[in-house]
Amino acid sequence: MIMKNPSACLIVIGNEILSGRTQDKNISFIATGLNEIGINLSEVRIIPDVEQTIVDTVKSCSSAFDYVFTTGGIGPTHDDITSNSIAKAFNVALSRNKEAENILLNHYGAENLNTARLKMAEIPEGSKLIYNPVSAAPGFIIENVYVMAGVPRVMQAMFDNIKGELKGGAKTLSKTISIYTTEGFIAEGLTKIQNEFPDVEIGSYPFIKNQRLGTSLVCRSTDTERLEICHSKLRIFLQTFSTELDDE
Amino acid sequence: MIMKNPSACLIVIGNEILSGRTQDKNISFIATGLNEIGINLSEVRIIPDVEQTIVDTVKSCSSAFDYVFTTGGIGPTHDDITSNSIAKAFNVALSRNKEAENILLNHYGAENLNTARLKMAEIPEGSKLIYNPVSAAPGFIIENVYVMAGVPRVMQAMFDNIKGELKGGAKTLSKTISIYTTEGFIAEGLTKIQNEFPDVEIGSYPFIKNQRLGTSLVCRSTDTERLEICHSKLRIFLQTFSTELDDE
Repeated sequence: MIMKNPSACLIVIGNEILSGRTQDKNISFIATGLNEIGINLSEVRIIPDVEQTIVDTVKSCSSAFDYVFTTGGIGPTHDDITSNSIAKAFNVALSRNKEAENILLNHYGAENLNTARLKMAEIPEGSKLIYNPVSAAPGFIIENVYVMAGVPRVMQAMFDNIKGELKGGAKTLSKTISIYTTEGFIAEGLTKIQNEFPDVEIGSYPFIKNQRLGTSLVCRSTDTERLEICHSKLRIFLQTFSTELDDE
Repeated sequence: MIMKNPSACLIVIGNEILSGRTQDKNISFIATGLNEIGINLSEVRIIPDVEQTIVDTVKSCSSAFDYVFTTGGIGPTHDDITSNSIAKAFNVALSRNKEAENILLNHYGAENLNTARLKMAEIPEGSKLIYNPVSAAPGFIIENVYVMAGVPRVMQAMFDNIKGELKGGAKTLSKTISIYTTEGFIAEGLTKIQNEFPDVEIGSYPFIKNQRLGTSLVCRSTDTERLEICHSKLRIFLQTFSTELDDE
């Protein structure tokens, strides 16, 4: 893992992922998005809708990482406890945010803005809103914590809205070569190349495709030139095992 | 989240998930499998291939949860550092396990059992092996930590092998109703039903299907009778909003 860039932690809040009911779709979207702007996703935590767990996790991740992103638990129902828990984590009040209330009023109209929906305007004091072009109810930013919805389409729109504000480092570039040879044959040579290129991270990922065993080698670095040299050396080394190489 | 059953934490070890390259497929498989035997998956952590991070995470999760499962990082390449890190977490030596060596010898044959592959027989002392019918190289169990491969097909075979040994509590049963109404309309009534059934967890999950907005209500409980009563009340309540209900 290349660790010089700003670090980020994603906290996925929701029993539905932990029960196996829902297959998460947010992690890879956010991972890819952060990577594009030079922020390393250093850890992901998936936690249940339990207040104390949310409070403890947000506190500890907020001090351990440069950026924290959360998804889930900011809707109108009884199991949406993220906003309240985050207010507690930062020792601030949860109160009616006027701007959020107006957004909801415009979206639902006065006749449909009931108590449950107004709950979505209850935001920790001192937060800045994250706009939601899909379903109106906003997320928010408090200190280094970015609080977003769990529904992928809504989360994606929110993430796109904040992406411009995030301060990343150098973009991590990657080059992948796949070979139909198992890891065990190439491992020793890979170690040598990795030792020669401490500034390039070489990941080795076995796969099974059309009943054949293979390995994908992923080189990642913020230094384009070193990445190219490492990749070329790797290619030459792999050709001694097979000439059938797939580049990505 | 129903918390009386034994708790589990899953630690997914691997840069490929954090970089967004690979979409995780192991979390929902393990979540569903644990649920079936009455163990609650209480938390998931996705961490990079960084020794200190693995050591710290395994230590802290091993004391916080009844069971810990890890996936990834037990192959033959330089980036496979899970076994070594777990030995460090438990302050035991990493040494050549005779049984594991014999398994690899049988699988690869003496001529193909090179140094890199022998690395997969280096297991923390005091561990019990987890057999791997897919690609031979075993996982292992040390204290309450179950160390498995990251490749989904291999992980699944390992998990099926250990499932019988895990001591679960009461199985959590669930019933789902979906309605084409948004959460905001039903939230107030849901809260009332949830308050009436503290022993049933009601989760509310908005969805978008065929351009229509809807909400899935998932009732979960270890008590079949209470689950049925709660589900019936919920059904009657939801019918006041729409007669088009989908049962799962």
